[in-house]
Amino acid sequence: MTDITAIEAAAERLAGRARVTPLLNSPELDAVAGRRVWVKAECLQHTGSFKFRGAWAAVSALPAAVRAKGVLAFSSGNHAQGVALAAREHGIPAVIIMPADAPRVKIEGTKALGAEVVTYDRAGGESREAIGARLVAERGLTLIRPYDDAQVIAGQGTAGLEIAEQAAALGITSADVVVCCGGGGLSSGIALALEARAPGLRVRTAEPAEFDDMARSLASGVRAVNATPSGSICDAIVTPTPGELTLPILARLAGPGLVVSDDEALAAMALAFRHLKIVLEPGGAVALAAALFRRDSLSGADVIALASGGNVDASMFANAIAGHAA
Amino acid sequence: MTDITAIEAAAERLAGRARVTPLLNSPELDAVAGRRVWVKAECLQHTGSFKFRGAWAAVSALPAAVRAKGVLAFSSGNHAQGVALAAREHGIPAVIIMPADAPRVKIEGTKALGAEVVTYDRAGGESREAIGARLVAERGLTLIRPYDDAQVIAGQGTAGLEIAEQAAALGITSADVVVCCGGGGLSSGIALALEARAPGLRVRTAEPAEFDDMARSLASGVRAVNATPSGSICDAIVTPTPGELTLPILARLAGPGLVVSDDEALAAMALAFRHLKIVLEPGGAVALAAALFRRDSLSGADVIALASGGNVDASMFANAIAGHAA
Repeated sequence: MTDITAIEAAAERLAGRARVTPLLNSPELDAVAGRRVWVKAECLQHTGSFKFRGAWAAVSALPAAVRAKGVLAFSSGNHAQGVALAAREHGIPAVIIMPADAPRVKIEGTKALGAEVVTYDRAGGESREAIGARLVAERGLTLIRPYDDAQVIAGQGTAGLEIAEQAAALGITSADVVVCCGGGGLSSGIALALEARAPGLRVRTAEPAEFDDMARSLASGVRAVNATPSGSICDAIVTPTPGELTLPILARLAGPGLVVSDDEALAAMALAFRHLKIVLEPGGAVALAAALFRRDSLSGADVIALASGGNVDASMFANAIAGHAA
Repeated sequence: MTDITAIEAAAERLAGRARVTPLLNSPELDAVAGRRVWVKAECLQHTGSFKFRGAWAAVSALPAAVRAKGVLAFSSGNHAQGVALAAREHGIPAVIIMPADAPRVKIEGTKALGAEVVTYDRAGGESREAIGARLVAERGLTLIRPYDDAQVIAGQGTAGLEIAEQAAALGITSADVVVCCGGGGLSSGIALALEARAPGLRVRTAEPAEFDDMARSLASGVRAVNATPSGSICDAIVTPTPGELTLPILARLAGPGLVVSDDEALAAMALAFRHLKIVLEPGGAVALAAALFRRDSLSGADVIALASGGNVDASMFANAIAGHAA
């Protein structure tokens, strides 16, 4: 069970390993949003996304003898890179299981961080779980889940501790904190940190349209499942349904979920490019999009939005900034 | 005369106004450079470039009664935006003189920061200096020069104080600090700060090929002038010749100047996009380019490179990242 004690313990282990990312702002974004917008720039985290926090927290929490055997993850995205780098910095093996048809740049990027990549044939019916189970049995690897893991939630929650401190330094005692939401690991970790350290700040999840399982789950009280499993440009944060550990935390602590269109996510990428000089991927831009374009669903003079990067493709990025030029 | 006392006084005035920008790194950049590369990300400064530091330092140093009448700058670039924002935050008028054919986005961007933009006809022989002199006489405005000004140099030097502290925290006691160089305000300010606070760190100026007036001046001991006045894609840092205040400082403190090609600057932009998730403009990327691609001209296990942003055009940026894809 993740609580503030676990988050603060994770923060101690992460000190000097994860970056304390800045809270950026600009008058131009404030004008678009109609209030002051503060962007927690997790794209500047190691590997380009907040995923490194959770991966480091989980790897560092393992008993030394268990950790030494290595870790395993199923991911072709940011979680893979976070686990690969955390494992390399601990001097232990990492095996990442990816579909054989994953983009070459993601496979190569993960290998470049020292991980062993094992591919499976997505169409051919080969089960990644069966491959993973075999590797766990043969090598004693520990599976690091992307969000439904108490230590991963604690690690992501360290971003919330930083937000609490940074908001206090700015004199912000009441605001919505909009967070990109897939399975809910980041959102729930931040929610727990804010509950303890900045109770006037409230998490609001942000998701892309048609993949708004968390918003619907929060509204109905019942775990919703997306109609389509994949295919969003916001693929970095698409999961079929909220996590089992994360949903109860968010049901208790978060406000209503926010939903944005793909085009709004791309517009937020373009505005972050132009006015903050940071590189976001579509999934990492949905919270900023909600902060900018859901004025009537937010309250107060300030809004804080978590923004993340990851393996954004150069041509996709070029299209986003060209399609939403000044 | 700028010295460490003036730089530390500027740092006190800038505290809470300028951002303390992070020192970013990534294993992928280290692999390209063959040593550890630390990027001082001044693109994350307010207005997207280090120019805000010098502008704030100069505006805040004016006697209150003089300052209240307002400030004036000749610039269509980052200095204009830095002066405009510093003036607005001081609650005083700013007049920026730009050529009538400056890009509309730069004129609009400067107006959006609250400045009055006065344009002149570059081809028609109208002298910007005459317009400026008339405004100074009529309104009592104070001219803020872009680099040859003791307070501007002191303001830019605050980036050097931060580098000294950040390097010490990393245990780096000896390294080249590569700095994008136009007139030399930033380079000379950082050099003075390092001389006093981190004497094992040495400034190396970086310039684009064909606009290497500082490198040639440092080599010859005589102020060199570029053959061509303008036309580089690195326009943000192109000046005809080194500053009168800055060259003597750099002649005393800097190592040999470094020169990179336009293509190397674009490649550095692409690598910063991909691995650091930051947006640089070509002129703001020349120091990183030198750190990455002038391996044999640098020494030691670490190199620190200052990187800056500014008004980079979306299509130029798209071409840079597409032309140097992974």
